[in-house]
Amino acid sequence: MSKYKIGLFGFGCVGQGLYKTLSENNADAEIVKVCVKNKEKKRSIEAEKITYDAAEILNNEDINIIVELIDDAKAALEIVRAALKKGKAVVSANKKMVAENLDELIALQKQYETPLLYEGAVCGSIPIIRNLEDYYASEQIEEIKGIFNGSSNYILTKLFQEGKSYEEALGEAQANGFAETDPTLDVGGFDPKFKLSIILQHTFGIRQHPENIFNWGIQNISEKDIAFAKERNLKIKLLAKAHFDGKVLSTLVAPHFIDEQNPLYHVENEFNCVLINGKYASNQTLIGKGAGSLPTGLAVLSDVIALTQGYTYRYKSADFTSGGSQAVEVYLSFNDIEDIDKNAFTSISESYIGSDYGYIIGKIELEALQQLLNGSSGVNVVFTSGKQTEIEIPNLTYSYAN
Amino acid sequence: MSKYKIGLFGFGCVGQGLYKTLSENNADAEIVKVCVKNKEKKRSIEAEKITYDAAEILNNEDINIIVELIDDAKAALEIVRAALKKGKAVVSANKKMVAENLDELIALQKQYETPLLYEGAVCGSIPIIRNLEDYYASEQIEEIKGIFNGSSNYILTKLFQEGKSYEEALGEAQANGFAETDPTLDVGGFDPKFKLSIILQHTFGIRQHPENIFNWGIQNISEKDIAFAKERNLKIKLLAKAHFDGKVLSTLVAPHFIDEQNPLYHVENEFNCVLINGKYASNQTLIGKGAGSLPTGLAVLSDVIALTQGYTYRYKSADFTSGGSQAVEVYLSFNDIEDIDKNAFTSISESYIGSDYGYIIGKIELEALQQLLNGSSGVNVVFTSGKQTEIEIPNLTYSYAN
Ligand SMILES: NC(=O)c1ccc[n+]([C@@H]2O[C@H](COP(=O)([O-])OP(=O)(O)OC[C@H]3O[C@@H](n4cnc5c(N)ncnc54)[C@H](OP(=O)(O)O)[C@@H]3O)[C@@H](O)[C@H]2O)c1
Ligand SMILES: NC(=O)c1ccc[n+]([C@@H]2O[C@H](COP(=O)([O-])OP(=O)(O)OC[C@H]3O[C@@H](n4cnc5c(N)ncnc54)[C@H](OP(=O)(O)O)[C@@H]3O)[C@@H](O)[C@H]2O)c1
Repeated sequence: MSKYKIGLFGFGCVGQGLYKTLSENNADAEIVKVCVKNKEKKRSIEAEKITYDAAEILNNEDINIIVELIDDAKAALEIVRAALKKGKAVVSANKKMVAENLDELIALQKQYETPLLYEGAVCGSIPIIRNLEDYYASEQIEEIKGIFNGSSNYILTKLFQEGKSYEEALGEAQANGFAETDPTLDVGGFDPKFKLSIILQHTFGIRQHPENIFNWGIQNISEKDIAFAKERNLKIKLLAKAHFDGKVLSTLVAPHFIDEQNPLYHVENEFNCVLINGKYASNQTLIGKGAGSLPTGLAVLSDVIALTQGYTYRYKSADFTSGGSQAVEVYLSFNDIEDIDKNAFTSISESYIGSDYGYIIGKIELEALQQLLNGSSGVNVVFTSGKQTEIEIPNLTYSYAN
Repeated sequence: MSKYKIGLFGFGCVGQGLYKTLSENNADAEIVKVCVKNKEKKRSIEAEKITYDAAEILNNEDINIIVELIDDAKAALEIVRAALKKGKAVVSANKKMVAENLDELIALQKQYETPLLYEGAVCGSIPIIRNLEDYYASEQIEEIKGIFNGSSNYILTKLFQEGKSYEEALGEAQANGFAETDPTLDVGGFDPKFKLSIILQHTFGIRQHPENIFNWGIQNISEKDIAFAKERNLKIKLLAKAHFDGKVLSTLVAPHFIDEQNPLYHVENEFNCVLINGKYASNQTLIGKGAGSLPTGLAVLSDVIALTQGYTYRYKSADFTSGGSQAVEVYLSFNDIEDIDKNAFTSISESYIGSDYGYIIGKIELEALQQLLNGSSGVNVVFTSGKQTEIEIPNLTYSYAN
């Protein structure tokens, strides 16, 4: 008989991953009840473990760990709230729910003196939160960034390596269990934004709501954009980035051109990568699968085991000024130049205008870019500027067709 | 006044790194006394903190953490032994001392109920021991390997990228503080063997004395070997490798040919890389500086902070059979074919014999290779075979000069 009794919510991709990894480990914890939604579905576990009633788990006093692995952020918040209020320890892999409600979740942990862990919510199998909390707590981190979304990276890999269509690649990512139920979260750059928001808390002790982070996804990347990148031996990767100089925080999620010298160039398929730049150890790189049943199951299991050892996050905090205006350099592609307000750019280094495709490479304030993107259709943007991981676009001379 | 008072042994490269990183963090720990050896040296710290007498620290009851950062493994063992016996918590970065005495050190920790941590001893700034102890404890790791010696990797980078001579490159590594006081430990492949031995304990719960691990270093790499690699677009990297199938353990440290597809190809200078292959999360990669004052200082500081939080290693253990005979594929180069017993090879796929340089590429048992290397001079060996990180040598046709 284990000391720790788990009530599990959700038995989908990650829930089953946890079930398998836990059953193969001799942890002092066992799953005693599983709450799911759909009564019609066949399950691979004993019928008496299944329930459709959340209260049956939440009111069970024998259950001391709640693992929340459902695909509904709203319902997840209610479960996690209720569990914490009952003094149960909680593990969740729901980045949307955690990122959007971190203030409340930290307060609840404090008030009810019970921990919430969420390693599985951030970059799948990469142990990033634990390392930020423990090992990197004494590092002075200046920048943290990387590929935080396995599903988009999988799609980009298929687009670049195999010349697949966007729809085909998305379908494959979904079939492999890498994609969120709502694919917009992945391909729109929301999911990496949730992760970035959580990471900010554990890296810098800074709370920034995902709403306040700029995001642009990969769903508007056209064949022309891919051809542009390929001609210059570049790839496009969806990056999440945060830079903190001790006072001002700059954050964003956007596709970036990446050249071969960049470690991110070689991170393919559902793999994620976190790059940490600190004052003492300079560059640190962590690469691992960012999604999938067993990789994420392992991360969730590591949290369960941490709970059985009394582990909690410490939540340092820092004062900071919000980012204000960030100047960025971008490649902006469009169908029709008439749709584009060129004055939004502070400087333009290259432009091309064709009959149904054109682009501008130039410097622009992030807020002006946001306005431009909001007000236009048929546009896409890929970032080119910045420190270290980004590159200067090689200055090619182009023939201007019309 | 901090609760934790540190007695520091050694104020060289790493000792000063710890001093700086600690002084910039608000840890609940302070260095109250520093023991060094040479009375003539000028020090950058207050004279009243300096002592030349180990007993002054070891007998000081106020001091509850001993940090051992000297470059003498024998003296280090005595300090650590004495400290543990006095019930003081200890941090060390001495891989030789830890690897060669791990049985005793584990027993002492148990007997005196006081912890010893040594993150800084293994791969500098990469938090590998902590992750193996915590996060990866529930992973089923099949293979762990990588570049574990910053100094050799720095030398190899200079040889390959800048065409520097071996002596010049070694001198630079020493000037930068990456090399051990005795360079044979680094370039002879002993230092990575110590680290591998420590890693085996924390990955598989297996104790293997460094004496029982095959090692061949980089000090015999000739210009011809480098030319051979370059012609095939390969690099040579000094790898430490361990494979455990749940019963049989295979381990070795040796130079390997690495191609561009391999993540290790891009790990240069003093950077180290650890590749972990597990059943659940498949490949995980950690890259960071493997040496240097501040990177190693950070690792040591993280141990100090862990001690203030009551952290200890758990030391799982496993039954296993020793490796027995491993068949490997190697490139063996020589000055004179007369020195080489070709019958030691079980098969030969390629050979070249010139007037003062020749090579054989073939399969051989590790023990036979060891004998052959022991009995010959003017030879060098680079491994080509194995799983994942190693490559098949492309089959080039050669003209045979004589
Ligand atoms: N998939 C990944 O690789 C990955 C990686 C990292 C994090 N995550 C996160 O992990 C969580 C789960 O993802 P998933 O991919 O495992 O989702 P999934 O495969 O779609 O499974 C979702 C599970 O939740 C159950 N469920 C939904 N609403 C429920 C409710 N109100 N009460 C009880 N059960 C409910 C579903 O029940 P039925 O079985 O009855 O439909 C299903 O078992 C999400 O937060 C996701 O963001 C996923
Ligand atoms: N350098 C790196 O990047 C690195 C990385 C990882 C691990 N390490 C490990 O860290 C340890 C220290 O390396 P290091 O590079 O800092 O060495 P170092 O620069 O040569 O400094 C050695 C220090 O130890 C002192 N010392 C030597 N014997 C002593 C004794 N018996 N009693 C008291 N003090 C003594 C020396 O005193 P004096 O100042 O009086 O000469 C000096 O301060 C070694 O175990 C090494 O393997 C080093």
